[in-house]
Amino acid sequence: MSKIKVCVHGLGNIGKYSIEAIEAASDMECVGVVRRPSSIGKNKVDLREVDEFSSIEDLIKAKGKPDVCLIATPSRHAFDDDSLYLKYGIHTVDSFDIHTEIPEIVEKLEKVAKENNAVSVTAAGWDPGSDSVIRAMLEAMMPVGVTFTNFGRGRSMGHSAAARAVDGIKDAVSITIPMGGGRHSRLVYVVLEDGVSLETAKKRLAADDYFAHDPLDVKAVADSDELAMVCDSSHGVLMERQGASGLTDNQRMIFKMDINNPALTSQIMVSCARAATRLSAGCYTMIDIPPVLYLNMDRKTAIKKLV
Amino acid sequence: MSKIKVCVHGLGNIGKYSIEAIEAASDMECVGVVRRPSSIGKNKVDLREVDEFSSIEDLIKAKGKPDVCLIATPSRHAFDDDSLYLKYGIHTVDSFDIHTEIPEIVEKLEKVAKENNAVSVTAAGWDPGSDSVIRAMLEAMMPVGVTFTNFGRGRSMGHSAAARAVDGIKDAVSITIPMGGGRHSRLVYVVLEDGVSLETAKKRLAADDYFAHDPLDVKAVADSDELAMVCDSSHGVLMERQGASGLTDNQRMIFKMDINNPALTSQIMVSCARAATRLSAGCYTMIDIPPVLYLNMDRKTAIKKLV
Repeated sequence: MSKIKVCVHGLGNIGKYSIEAIEAASDMECVGVVRRPSSIGKNKVDLREVDEFSSIEDLIKAKGKPDVCLIATPSRHAFDDDSLYLKYGIHTVDSFDIHTEIPEIVEKLEKVAKENNAVSVTAAGWDPGSDSVIRAMLEAMMPVGVTFTNFGRGRSMGHSAAARAVDGIKDAVSITIPMGGGRHSRLVYVVLEDGVSLETAKKRLAADDYFAHDPLDVKAVADSDELAMVCDSSHGVLMERQGASGLTDNQRMIFKMDINNPALTSQIMVSCARAATRLSAGCYTMIDIPPVLYLNMDRKTAIKKLV
Repeated sequence: MSKIKVCVHGLGNIGKYSIEAIEAASDMECVGVVRRPSSIGKNKVDLREVDEFSSIEDLIKAKGKPDVCLIATPSRHAFDDDSLYLKYGIHTVDSFDIHTEIPEIVEKLEKVAKENNAVSVTAAGWDPGSDSVIRAMLEAMMPVGVTFTNFGRGRSMGHSAAARAVDGIKDAVSITIPMGGGRHSRLVYVVLEDGVSLETAKKRLAADDYFAHDPLDVKAVADSDELAMVCDSSHGVLMERQGASGLTDNQRMIFKMDINNPALTSQIMVSCARAATRLSAGCYTMIDIPPVLYLNMDRKTAIKKLV
């Protein structure tokens, strides 16, 4: 069987780990990375010998049309970047993580995907993403109850990117600290631009929707080197639900993981890329997808091995 | 919106809890229980004022055709009992739990379901069932690794039913005890028929495929009253996987639950009954079903609330 041709849009953390996850998947090949023209030639080692291109048009000219593109740029660019590929009928997978805007992006992507007879899987990381699937399953198993999703301690990629996008902040790392009951505080280390005070940076951060809802601590460090020593990519989650199945109370479940964050996100995107090639045109979140479609095995094998 | 009309086949443990779980679901109504003619009039309290019938034909005559039937009889009768309803175009959900025979029952039910333009969801309990979904998700998140599923301590309904079906055993309870690494021992309490020795019963149990693969302890008790004091319906599972996402090792996940066993099984069957009304004809295991279809809410609400 021929391999699924996957390309990657962007070569940040997720782009880099996506290349690795595609390499690890025996049914896929990475046909190229599309990057900003100004980035071409940089971070060669992260490419792992995959060819780089400054546009999807260039990639198609050189390699033919890929089956799927993994969108590895910040969430706020997801819709525009998905659209670049969908218009060529290339399936897309993004890890859009602005929870409040997911219904809206689903609706917009649904339209573009269907117009181009392609599949777009959105919000496909671990939260939103695989955690969403767990939440749906917990709800199906115990319809009465409340699920607490406790993140961390760990660096939030979405929050870090959001902090870096704030005016006056040169570089930033945002650490999520669980407070129990699904509440979290944010500890943001920032490298300030010249002439910007810590107080100003903190105010701007607190006004951002990513940070507006949680207790916030902001600390300044001298430069990106010092910032890099603050936190590695380990992260985790503890999901808890107690509730009732039917009329029976005291049902208790937990899901817990301790993980390398971008590695898991990228692996999930790769599994969703596989699913994308098996779905009919439209936009999907992970709760819309039969789990068997993520797997590098046929249905019969999956039923035998996993059911 | 009109409610989903559900009937229940059998009034054992699962039948009884299924009636409760249907009652708790605001989008469903229980239109009747189909029981052996010899059981009609017994265990009235378990019926919770639902009408009982001695055949699906009688139920249809009195109440019209139900949308779905929950098959609440032992696994070994699942295919025959599913077929009774599928032939009328009534969707079925069973909790068939003989893992090694699932590929075969899927194939057989697929044929019958499609012939009758109905949906059959099989192996829909917690293991196989929701645990299968978790196993598939863990595999999608960490393709390299081994998942250990550690059951118990708790009474296995499937193993207890299998023990009771053994010649010379009047009544039995089988307790599953986790040994770590996905291994278990079985502790079976039996009420022997007159003239049958414990040694004979143990030999017969050990020859049964349900018990052939694990360390087995068998103890005799005097009667069913003493047996009932051995173990309640609490059960649980600890699923563990450590492995690699892409090329990154040391990813660790666990799923753990402590639950009332028949209550959870029945709730999952009810959630699958809802899914059955939203799927196209054919046979499904839970890894074949988009999780959103289990939920008593529309997709838009589910995306907003759970993704």
